Amino acid sequence: MLPYQIIEKKSKGEKLSAEEINEFIEGYTAGRIPDYQTSALLMAIFIKGMDTEETLALTKSMLDSGDKMDFSAATGFVADKHSTGGVGDKVSILLAPIMAVLGIHIPMISGRGLGHSGGTLDKLESIPGFDVNLSLDRWRELVLEEKVGLVGQTGNICPADKKLYSLRDVTATVRSIPLISASIMSKKIAEGIQGLVLDVKTGNGAFMQTLEESRALAKSLVSIGKGYGIQTKAVITDMNQPLGLAIGNWVEMKESVQGLQGNGPEDLMAVTYELGAQILMMADPQMDKQDAIELQQQVVNDGRAFEKLLRIVELQGGDPRILETPEKYPKAAHVVRVNADGSGFIAAIDTLALGFAGIELGAGRRVITDPIDHSSGMYMGKKLGDPVSPGDELITLHSNDAAAVDRVAAQIADAFTLSEKPAPTPPLIVEEIL
Amino acid sequence: MLPYQIIEKKSKGEKLSAEEINEFIEGYTAGRIPDYQTSALLMAIFIKGMDTEETLALTKSMLDSGDKMDFSAATGFVADKHSTGGVGDKVSILLAPIMAVLGIHIPMISGRGLGHSGGTLDKLESIPGFDVNLSLDRWRELVLEEKVGLVGQTGNICPADKKLYSLRDVTATVRSIPLISASIMSKKIAEGIQGLVLDVKTGNGAFMQTLEESRALAKSLVSIGKGYGIQTKAVITDMNQPLGLAIGNWVEMKESVQGLQGNGPEDLMAVTYELGAQILMMADPQMDKQDAIELQQQVVNDGRAFEKLLRIVELQGGDPRILETPEKYPKAAHVVRVNADGSGFIAAIDTLALGFAGIELGAGRRVITDPIDHSSGMYMGKKLGDPVSPGDELITLHSNDAAAVDRVAAQIADAFTLSEKPAPTPPLIVEEIL
Repeated sequence: MLPYQIIEKKSKGEKLSAEEINEFIEGYTAGRIPDYQTSALLMAIFIKGMDTEETLALTKSMLDSGDKMDFSAATGFVADKHSTGGVGDKVSILLAPIMAVLGIHIPMISGRGLGHSGGTLDKLESIPGFDVNLSLDRWRELVLEEKVGLVGQTGNICPADKKLYSLRDVTATVRSIPLISASIMSKKIAEGIQGLVLDVKTGNGAFMQTLEESRALAKSLVSIGKGYGIQTKAVITDMNQPLGLAIGNWVEMKESVQGLQGNGPEDLMAVTYELGAQILMMADPQMDKQDAIELQQQVVNDGRAFEKLLRIVELQGGDPRILETPEKYPKAAHVVRVNADGSGFIAAIDTLALGFAGIELGAGRRVITDPIDHSSGMYMGKKLGDPVSPGDELITLHSNDAAAVDRVAAQIADAFTLSEKPAPTPPLIVEEIL
Repeated sequence: MLPYQIIEKKSKGEKLSAEEINEFIEGYTAGRIPDYQTSALLMAIFIKGMDTEETLALTKSMLDSGDKMDFSAATGFVADKHSTGGVGDKVSILLAPIMAVLGIHIPMISGRGLGHSGGTLDKLESIPGFDVNLSLDRWRELVLEEKVGLVGQTGNICPADKKLYSLRDVTATVRSIPLISASIMSKKIAEGIQGLVLDVKTGNGAFMQTLEESRALAKSLVSIGKGYGIQTKAVITDMNQPLGLAIGNWVEMKESVQGLQGNGPEDLMAVTYELGAQILMMADPQMDKQDAIELQQQVVNDGRAFEKLLRIVELQGGDPRILETPEKYPKAAHVVRVNADGSGFIAAIDTLALGFAGIELGAGRRVITDPIDHSSGMYMGKKLGDPVSPGDELITLHSNDAAAVDRVAAQIADAFTLSEKPAPTPPLIVEEIL
């Protein structure tokens, strides 16, 4: 079938066959089908959707477009965690070393910041020297020997997804359940894992803002994972406010270190332990959740998890000393504290606005070629439910761009809504999708 | 607003403002917005539609992207006719000289074959030497002095439409009422005309196959024309079979000459006279339709319309003698008559299939760079309602491509459906939209 006919079929809302989907994805990856035909198909999929079979076929085509890892030589359980993206979400940086210390192999392929959301790779790169672009062989070696390697979408893993992803990013076709599902799952399946826990964010700082959409995405992801024989669970977690207090790159690395030193914010640690427990229970079906959480707390409290992070950093070319003496990290030139005018309780936080404010300060990219200012970012002074008096710190901004700090400072207080009486805060762990 | 945000807004089915539409069209025409973002927007428009205000704004942006003609120096009424496209539709070639002889100025910008449908420019170019690429100045001179010039989308007339059109052609976004309306009307308004009659085809050989769709398109076109102060009427005509007997390029030129010599097929002449009458009645509101038809028949019968065609051909560089001695035109190497097997009456003709068969024989293009075989084409042996006996001629194929003739000959009889009793034939002139 011609690309034209495949586009036409989907634009009418008809179901595409696995052959048609594969023909298109293969043609696009090989450069035979141009971007402008592909973006027309993506928009048709975005609006008309895809059913479970089509989504599975799309995942398979994207997976088959590149190399798959084989970790059958691993001595223990091989698993990964993936988040659908939010603000202040640095869970991967804590979870990877905790799991590795507990014997789980974590071949973690992470992404960069996208839209308003941050990316693990950008945060890791705030460590001087840290290299996320390892060869597949070196990465495999690290995962087998050290149980963990932290890399980007390297080598020839899902090249179809790489191409499609950058096209979706500029054609307003990101927020589509079948497209998100195939993109995430093709990369995760290519990692050669046995278990996968998905952190599906919900709320005003998530890509899927309503619980209904988040649940639909979670179910789609879980069904694909299971279809490939991977133990897959999704946990829907709240993203109606940033996770933890730090938003940015180095500031989030610093908060991750604090977390691994036993001083992390409660919400960040709760999500980390919840997701980690899910992986531990997959590896050992006899384990109960309370034990799985305590095991993690132990390796945090005895310092082994932090030591593991230092070792990974060193092996991937980074300077581990800066994590031990974070006060030596170059400071942002401009630090502005934004205070509350009124009094009451924090009833709502516009998390999307905070994410975009972070980009404006230099912590993210407006276009793919923008450089990142690793020192820039924000610290939350108040979170949902906190009491507020005039003059209290709402948020503190860090940046090397004076004009950006002024622009953000003038508006950022609008992201906080006060109420007279304390409003109920949303539950952090919303539900599990098995 | 960013192109991204405009795409996103339309993908949700929201209404775009005139400023947003203009920003996008200007950016695309200037090359600032890439094809891949534009095709995503086109697909969103294709699926989600545009209301009357948006369609008007789109027309205006496309019109304003280039030059507009000014025929205020013309001594008489300035009008044009446009067809939405069908099979065997050579009406423009007859109508232009008839109108010119009757004192109407016809600044006709025509198109090439598109999809299964033929194009006036391709037919005119089957005349050796005929030049459809005149400069705007030379064309204007011809229209003022000779009352008619037959050209393609020349110079800087609606460059936005040119770019958008080729993109739509390869991204399955052609059949969209707002996109078709803006494309047709921006070019017609740029001609600087006072009156416009639209031949909106309906049936299995038309782009809009149902009467409902054809009517919606007709209304959209008429409302835009009126919005620009142009007297505009649409006539919905039947395209459940080819118009006339010839399908192709030279074969259609020859049939047009026969028409102008008083020997044209009845349906072709009826549509020509109907559309011509609409223009004459716009030019002279006192005129009644019967008189308008008879005036046209007179200039055909006294030979003046044919003489006018010969003069146009000569002035545009073509060889008028070949129109007087068509038997001297190079013949196709392969002529195959396809006969009926069964007996009965022609109940249905798959006009789309005939159009595509014509392309296969060489009369049209599969991709934009395909050359055209001007001698190739088909002659209908039977039309709707005709009685058929075994061995009767259904259709005769002409081509210089032996393999193509064989392929088409093996299948083309399937395009004809027979019934035992004569089925009612659809009315030729379906309705007028004023």
